[in-house]
Amino acid sequence: MATAPSSDFSSPLSVVVLAAGKGTRMHSRHSKVLQKLAGRPLLFHVLETAAALHPEQVIAITGHEAAQVQGRVQEAAPTLLPAMPVHFALQEPQNGTGHAVQQAVPLLPDEHTVLVLFGDVPLVQADTLRQVLHACHNQCLSLLTIHLDDPFGYGRIVRDGQGQVEAIVEQKDASEAQRQIREINSGIMAMPARLLKPWLQRLDNHNAQGELYLTDLIALARADGVAVQAHCLNASEEWQVAGINTPTQLAALERQYQHLQAQRLMQAGVRLADPARFDLRSAPQAAQAGQLQCGKDVEIDVGCIFSGTVELADGVRIGAYCHISNARIGADSVIHPYSHIDGEKAGVTVGEDALIGPFARLRPGAQLGNAVHIGNFVEVKNSQMADGSKANHLAYLGDASVGERVNYGAGSITANYDGANKHRTVIEADAHIGSNCVLVAPVTIGAGGTVGAGSTVSRDTAPQSLTVTRAKAISVAHWQRPAKKP
Amino acid sequence: MATAPSSDFSSPLSVVVLAAGKGTRMHSRHSKVLQKLAGRPLLFHVLETAAALHPEQVIAITGHEAAQVQGRVQEAAPTLLPAMPVHFALQEPQNGTGHAVQQAVPLLPDEHTVLVLFGDVPLVQADTLRQVLHACHNQCLSLLTIHLDDPFGYGRIVRDGQGQVEAIVEQKDASEAQRQIREINSGIMAMPARLLKPWLQRLDNHNAQGELYLTDLIALARADGVAVQAHCLNASEEWQVAGINTPTQLAALERQYQHLQAQRLMQAGVRLADPARFDLRSAPQAAQAGQLQCGKDVEIDVGCIFSGTVELADGVRIGAYCHISNARIGADSVIHPYSHIDGEKAGVTVGEDALIGPFARLRPGAQLGNAVHIGNFVEVKNSQMADGSKANHLAYLGDASVGERVNYGAGSITANYDGANKHRTVIEADAHIGSNCVLVAPVTIGAGGTVGAGSTVSRDTAPQSLTVTRAKAISVAHWQRPAKKP
Amino acid sequence: MATAPSSDFSSPLSVVVLAAGKGTRMHSRHSKVLQKLAGRPLLFHVLETAAALHPEQVIAITGHEAAQVQGRVQEAAPTLLPAMPVHFALQEPQNGTGHAVQQAVPLLPDEHTVLVLFGDVPLVQADTLRQVLHACHNQCLSLLTIHLDDPFGYGRIVRDGQGQVEAIVEQKDASEAQRQIREINSGIMAMPARLLKPWLQRLDNHNAQGELYLTDLIALARADGVAVQAHCLNASEEWQVAGINTPTQLAALERQYQHLQAQRLMQAGVRLADPARFDLRSAPQAAQAGQLQCGKDVEIDVGCIFSGTVELADGVRIGAYCHISNARIGADSVIHPYSHIDGEKAGVTVGEDALIGPFARLRPGAQLGNAVHIGNFVEVKNSQMADGSKANHLAYLGDASVGERVNYGAGSITANYDGANKHRTVIEADAHIGSNCVLVAPVTIGAGGTVGAGSTVSRDTAPQSLTVTRAKAISVAHWQRPAKKP
Repeated sequence: MATAPSSDFSSPLSVVVLAAGKGTRMHSRHSKVLQKLAGRPLLFHVLETAAALHPEQVIAITGHEAAQVQGRVQEAAPTLLPAMPVHFALQEPQNGTGHAVQQAVPLLPDEHTVLVLFGDVPLVQADTLRQVLHACHNQCLSLLTIHLDDPFGYGRIVRDGQGQVEAIVEQKDASEAQRQIREINSGIMAMPARLLKPWLQRLDNHNAQGELYLTDLIALARADGVAVQAHCLNASEEWQVAGINTPTQLAALERQYQHLQAQRLMQAGVRLADPARFDLRSAPQAAQAGQLQCGKDVEIDVGCIFSGTVELADGVRIGAYCHISNARIGADSVIHPYSHIDGEKAGVTVGEDALIGPFARLRPGAQLGNAVHIGNFVEVKNSQMADGSKANHLAYLGDASVGERVNYGAGSITANYDGANKHRTVIEADAHIGSNCVLVAPVTIGAGGTVGAGSTVSRDTAPQSLTVTRAKAISVAHWQRPAKKP
Repeated sequence: MATAPSSDFSSPLSVVVLAAGKGTRMHSRHSKVLQKLAGRPLLFHVLETAAALHPEQVIAITGHEAAQVQGRVQEAAPTLLPAMPVHFALQEPQNGTGHAVQQAVPLLPDEHTVLVLFGDVPLVQADTLRQVLHACHNQCLSLLTIHLDDPFGYGRIVRDGQGQVEAIVEQKDASEAQRQIREINSGIMAMPARLLKPWLQRLDNHNAQGELYLTDLIALARADGVAVQAHCLNASEEWQVAGINTPTQLAALERQYQHLQAQRLMQAGVRLADPARFDLRSAPQAAQAGQLQCGKDVEIDVGCIFSGTVELADGVRIGAYCHISNARIGADSVIHPYSHIDGEKAGVTVGEDALIGPFARLRPGAQLGNAVHIGNFVEVKNSQMADGSKANHLAYLGDASVGERVNYGAGSITANYDGANKHRTVIEADAHIGSNCVLVAPVTIGAGGTVGAGSTVSRDTAPQSLTVTRAKAISVAHWQRPAKKP
Repeated sequence: MATAPSSDFSSPLSVVVLAAGKGTRMHSRHSKVLQKLAGRPLLFHVLETAAALHPEQVIAITGHEAAQVQGRVQEAAPTLLPAMPVHFALQEPQNGTGHAVQQAVPLLPDEHTVLVLFGDVPLVQADTLRQVLHACHNQCLSLLTIHLDDPFGYGRIVRDGQGQVEAIVEQKDASEAQRQIREINSGIMAMPARLLKPWLQRLDNHNAQGELYLTDLIALARADGVAVQAHCLNASEEWQVAGINTPTQLAALERQYQHLQAQRLMQAGVRLADPARFDLRSAPQAAQAGQLQCGKDVEIDVGCIFSGTVELADGVRIGAYCHISNARIGADSVIHPYSHIDGEKAGVTVGEDALIGPFARLRPGAQLGNAVHIGNFVEVKNSQMADGSKANHLAYLGDASVGERVNYGAGSITANYDGANKHRTVIEADAHIGSNCVLVAPVTIGAGGTVGAGSTVSRDTAPQSLTVTRAKAISVAHWQRPAKKP
């Protein structure tokens, strides 16, 4: 019956994602589907899950802020939907879920199976959807349903003697027996395009809202003698079908997502001091999910936040309240509390046995070797530091290349910016930079050289030399300090 | 019957607040009612709620640490009880709740309705109390009651066929049927002063503690044929009647309060990354509650703490673990993690599109313009920075006036304190201050001027000039660094 | 029957601790019993509890990573098991709990009572074990059992008419009536050595795993007519018998432990802003538990972490997200948020009425007097600061002795390290150190002296003198700043 499958399933697949809603209760200037969960738009979660099903195409139904939604999806498509066509259909005005899917009809080949997803139901899992598609089998209408502990207010799934779905009965229409039913509809469904199209034409808006509802397809299918299957999740999976209408719901699902990340990491052996105080997110502006890859015996203290792609090698320990983004940390390194490591696009790398923080800031392009020590109130940006180098106190290293075993003194600064351009500082191996120095780039401190405390160095220094810029001390005896003015 | 109402109610109102308790289990040197919830004394919460009822007077019954309690209330009264007389009555010794209210009798006009509140029951809401007063109607005795899921140990509210309160039956005296009652007494009650006064005279101390109990008024009212009404809260409102006797109870109610704040903000559209890690409090020493006013699309990351009055304009994003007090942040500004912004009395203002932090400290009187950048380990106090100015790394700006587009270098310091007095530093527009400079106030850096790295400037510099104080570099070739002593 | 008791009990006691397990699901390179709860190995918790019973000896059964486990225990023994012999027995291979205890037989005198504990069940309390030993009385087999709300999957404790344990029936073998039993076995048990030894010889491995099980002792005792007693915990004490097999279980028990610490502190009067965001741990490498001793009216804000031994005197307030280890803080001092105080071995002391932070770092050997102020981005290490001294902004004090009322300027640094050795800086009373100074140790600033801003001082200065090292300012008018390169 179906053409040769180009996907995981017996039929080619079109995924239709409803993304037109306004989300009034978000009180936002932005579309609801662009609200962020774990650092990226709700819609991106759904698109990535759709892509995992290898569909022939993804069709996003846009409406509110359509141009913004379409723009963000097109930007993210190469990442989220690689080698997969994305189409957009505008639903204007928004007359219900059935009306939304109607907009996709011109794009749906008859031989496709159609899977309907919701841009504000971000966490449904691909395996779950495969079950829905399996139940559909390009022949039936299939639904994703769930058992709830408290189904009050939801339409109940009434099944017939064969276990097929007979109807969805709304709370107010339900008999006492039907109200005991705990299986409810998620809204997610799949069906053959060839059946969907005529059904969509038969939808009517004879209801309180005057809208066209997708759920009315069940009655149409039954009327046509088409079987209605359902794949039912158990109550503990409610997060998979949770939709977002308010910031409160968004926050709850964010916590659920983070709980799942924490559980996954702990099952892989990561020691989290408090799974309820752990966050893993997309990097800002990134389309893909945050990824935290950990070796053995990684310990993560309370309140840490990871974003983008972070790799922690064996034995790494992350102190409390660290914020680490797009970085690789080598084996047995220790990141002390309150360290902010953000590699953004350039990345940050830290070698093995390094000690970082507390209160360290590593910025993009910081590349630290093994056994490097970065102490409190030290900022490193776009700089290499070779093995065994140290900058332990209140210092700035920017656009610098630092050799091995360099000691970079407290309060010292690379003056890398002349007000117009950035220049590089080179500190060769075994140099010792005293306290409160300024190295005015471009400048090179020769290997093994020493710069005396308080010096401002604007010319290259010879290897093994001592360089000092220091005015003669003047002393005034019995000096009278200013008096406090009244 | 009543005089012309001067309040929201049919009769003039006296609020009596019991604030004499010691709170032994707090293990504190201070009165229990001065213990802090959300940053201010328990009693202040109650007084503010009382004020919302527009009473003719508030009477605080003091006892333990009476002078301290009275002093704090008098300080706070202009804020909490504007244009409202506060009287104090001393209960010494403390012989029960009935005895406490007896102390107020001389201050209670017969025509008043009397509402009895408890200084250690901080979160009862004004709307709830209006219901209690409505039930009283200056005719009945009315109680605030609550349904509990587990009423074990509490006196049960026994109602008669008309729904009026017949009696309060203690746990030990309750029949099996009465033990099934889940409605219990909160202690909060209202009644006409003209009835209260004779009842108070009839209270006796024939009980285990030998104290006079307010709850005995119910029996007296019934005996006198006065109706006893009750306004009953449902179990989810238990926090409204929760009293504080221990630090454990205080912490639990603090979390409940913060939960309510978080919910309220999310309902208004604020995105909280984790509602369970959010705190909003009074500023230290302040009488009024903490206020967080947010525009649209405000995002607040995990673990942030707000105190005093904070305004966040549209699109503001607050990074993790920020601590913000008495500050206004302009639209679309980003406060990076671990920033500490405390305006105290002078306030802090940040313009639009500003970038602050991570690890920034803004202190009172920091007034930052649009697109100002304050980076890591930078402190700004009592200083203006005009649009587009930047201090990105390890710097101190105190008592300074900074023009537009100034670049203030890493490690630079305004030496504003001569050991006795503070002086101002003026940095005019477009100036560029190099790294590790010291500007010794009073001093002015002329517009467009440059100060070379490592300079100490103690005299005004001309516009467009370059100023450098730098000793000649001395080099010693083949210098032998000190050897490590054994 | 027993020899004269050398312990709390009627008979001398041998404690056998099973510590041979691998803990595959921890995915660790280390033994399971060395995984850390509250900062120290699981096994150390058990050993400390064992020591509280004053046994004649403790016998650890090792297996996986036996050398590492034995080494760590021997290191910790002087602290955890003072004046108490520790013996080790190797179980290789690991053939079940019965097999493990068999390894201890040669070390068990017949007259001893034997208590079997588990190295991965860290939180059982000494009082609980005393009950188990009391039930044993060197005559019976006694078990520690617990009532669970949901006992599914656990072996049920079947008691006879006299309340003695008749059998443990596994889930699969249980009748419907037996499945209603909610009392289950914890594994912890005690018995006379003289009975244990022959029973261990009679254990067989006729079970699915082919291992020897301790629980089979119950049947052997019954067969021999020995009474089997049980001390049963209620469900809320489940943490006492919780075993650790996965990082998820470890995290859950960590939270339970912290919850108990928080409760204990609040009961003693400490005000915790959020008991769910509080951590108290062992110091790194320490064998003993973390200890937080608080005076009256101590307030601890959200997210604080304490480790090692910390003392907070009356009225101390700790701001949010502080990390304090091995330190003593004097009365009424305030530690502002994000302060990192780590005394390690040398300790940190802070006097009374001090103000520390925010963003302060106090390192080992920091000894601060009364009313000392340490401000943001300031690091103090191995230094004394006498009463009333201040270092308020971006500064480093290392190996320094600072007198009373010294003002240490913003950005100033003690250059204590010459690249090979550390030297001391002495700043005598009432000195005023300007901004961005460097004091090159060894050096003394005389009493009442002033060091001008930006000075580098490498020689001692006289009392009451002004010392400045500052090059003459050079100005270049109409200076053309470098242009931005394309």
